[in-house]
Amino acid sequence: MDSCPLCQPDTDETIWADASCRVLLVDDEDHPGYCRVIWHAHVAEMSDLTPADQRHLMNVVMATEIALRELMQPAKINLASLGNKVPHLHWHVIARFVDDRHFPDAIWGKLQREGVRRNGPARAALHDALVVALTELRAG
Amino acid sequence: MDSCPLCQPDTDETIWADASCRVLLVDDEDHPGYCRVIWHAHVAEMSDLTPADQRHLMNVVMATEIALRELMQPAKINLASLGNKVPHLHWHVIARFVDDRHFPDAIWGKLQREGVRRNGPARAALHDALVVALTELRAG
Repeated sequence: MDSCPLCQPDTDETIWADASCRVLLVDDEDHPGYCRVIWHAHVAEMSDLTPADQRHLMNVVMATEIALRELMQPAKINLASLGNKVPHLHWHVIARFVDDRHFPDAIWGKLQREGVRRNGPARAALHDALVVALTELRAG
Repeated sequence: MDSCPLCQPDTDETIWADASCRVLLVDDEDHPGYCRVIWHAHVAEMSDLTPADQRHLMNVVMATEIALRELMQPAKINLASLGNKVPHLHWHVIARFVDDRHFPDAIWGKLQREGVRRNGPARAALHDALVVALTELRAG
């Protein structure tokens, strides 16, 4: 749909894509290990996809989770498909750390602390490592 | 693990179960269409499961989503696996309504309004309908 922001390509943050979906590394300084997996077509819910497409999308979400775990050793991975504001199917895949600004709440929850250090590798290094990891995981 | 609340059975809220996981109808008066899908074994992350177990768990999450959509016609379904506080794999499957207390934020986000009406069927009716729907969806 013309008015949907996720129907537009987001070239600057995209780190991997295939014919069905794309993976972005979100530029969020509070949560450096924050990826978004976006289904290309404008559908609202996971259950609007065929079972085969659901499996494909979840496989890409899992590859993203595995890459973030390997690269950042987070305390926890958070997965979420909400879409209340932008009802175009997308998954948040977020590496969480005990000293991040919202832990142990959801990143949409209460601010817990200020001025925490940035966990994990620098953004450019993380970007490049994620590209390699996703390409290998999806090829493997 | 002995100290993990999700390693204990929760008989009162459980509406469906198989050998691997169980579905609860959460007693949340702000969000009546709120289910939780809990993996029986104590693992933290989706990617700790085998690919076959990931598919099985996601199939149960999808059956729960489909049942909630059919029974409640929500504005949106929210799916989330967070586990920052209780790192035992579980999924939140939440029917969201434009007049619920947190919409369009996540239910873990900012309170948006007070005193909204309860959407959908009464809890007892929803409970019984979910049992039937999940049983049929998982058998089908």
